[in-house]
Amino acid sequence: MNSKFIVIEGLEGAGKTSAMETVVEILQQHGIQNLVFTREPGGTPLAEKLRELIKQGIEGESLTDKAEVLMLYAARVQLVENVIKPALARGAWVVGDRHDLSSQAYQGGGRGIDKNLMTSLRDTVLGDFRPDLTIYLDLPPQIGLLRARERGELDRIEKESMDFFERTRSCYLEFAAQDKRIVTVDAAQPIEQVHADICQALEQWLKQQENG
Amino acid sequence: MNSKFIVIEGLEGAGKTSAMETVVEILQQHGIQNLVFTREPGGTPLAEKLRELIKQGIEGESLTDKAEVLMLYAARVQLVENVIKPALARGAWVVGDRHDLSSQAYQGGGRGIDKNLMTSLRDTVLGDFRPDLTIYLDLPPQIGLLRARERGELDRIEKESMDFFERTRSCYLEFAAQDKRIVTVDAAQPIEQVHADICQALEQWLKQQENG
Repeated sequence: MNSKFIVIEGLEGAGKTSAMETVVEILQQHGIQNLVFTREPGGTPLAEKLRELIKQGIEGESLTDKAEVLMLYAARVQLVENVIKPALARGAWVVGDRHDLSSQAYQGGGRGIDKNLMTSLRDTVLGDFRPDLTIYLDLPPQIGLLRARERGELDRIEKESMDFFERTRSCYLEFAAQDKRIVTVDAAQPIEQVHADICQALEQWLKQQENG
Repeated sequence: MNSKFIVIEGLEGAGKTSAMETVVEILQQHGIQNLVFTREPGGTPLAEKLRELIKQGIEGESLTDKAEVLMLYAARVQLVENVIKPALARGAWVVGDRHDLSSQAYQGGGRGIDKNLMTSLRDTVLGDFRPDLTIYLDLPPQIGLLRARERGELDRIEKESMDFFERTRSCYLEFAAQDKRIVTVDAAQPIEQVHADICQALEQWLKQQENG
């Protein structure tokens, strides 16, 4: 089986970290040991600097929606060209904490940036490069934010309104409904059931890949 | 007369700093005292951070052409929205050391990024916002780089090949030939003649604005 790029997506507090662990466990059971992990925005020295600017903002200066999305794509193209594509080329599997779908959902859905603009920016910057599989952890934002708050101080994006996160979630669901490479898991269930659903989805997908 | 946005453009060593001084002198002779100066990339705290990343690069990581252009536009939209438009709205004139034409010329011409992509990025990010007047200082790159070298250490972009600057210059000339709002001044002339040409071009343009 060729190396693959698998991404975990979802709102804050949806359980992405646990889901990453589940994915790694399953991959290792299948003898896939050569793994590279990414998180977005970030994952290269430059992308991490951009992440910090996006997450924390700049004292006394408002970050425009357009600058935010341009910086996200600058970080993403660095990660894809300098990390993800070289890893896949040398046979490693890449497991990503967020990728392009986050920008579509947060900036296109949440911030309301024109969706055609968002997909044309994606196509311009990334060409036809896409994750092989995306596991989207679906959750009402109320539950996710409660969990995120328990973890500590909220960043600039986590401080957005509930409406923002509702729009983001709707956009995630819209993309998931249209793209067979996105699997939706109900992340409001007890953690054991979420784990079981991820295992089942991934096992099924791996079987499909093995059978070609 | 409404406030205006005037930009000085040209290759490294073309004499942009002296040209800015000339422009300011003329504007002040016309009683225009409320002036704001910008330089690009830069001019806001965030844009200056992006400038530093673009100019110096990141140790051990290659900056992709696409990330470079996305960061340039992120810096530009911050400057336009947070500085230039508010200044024009309160009646100040803005005099800029570089603006969008630099990206068209350096990234579109020099780096060879698809020119349709470059203009569509411009239109997407900036809408129809354009300088009222651009003074382009035209110079063979050999001369400009000699001057830039005399000033000290070269940055990441100044270290590009002569071919890169030839392509950049061709692209500047192409835009200047198509756009009446761009005035070309021969910057290879003795400095007194360059000064005189800028004065004449600006005086003539101001007269048109006053009558228009």
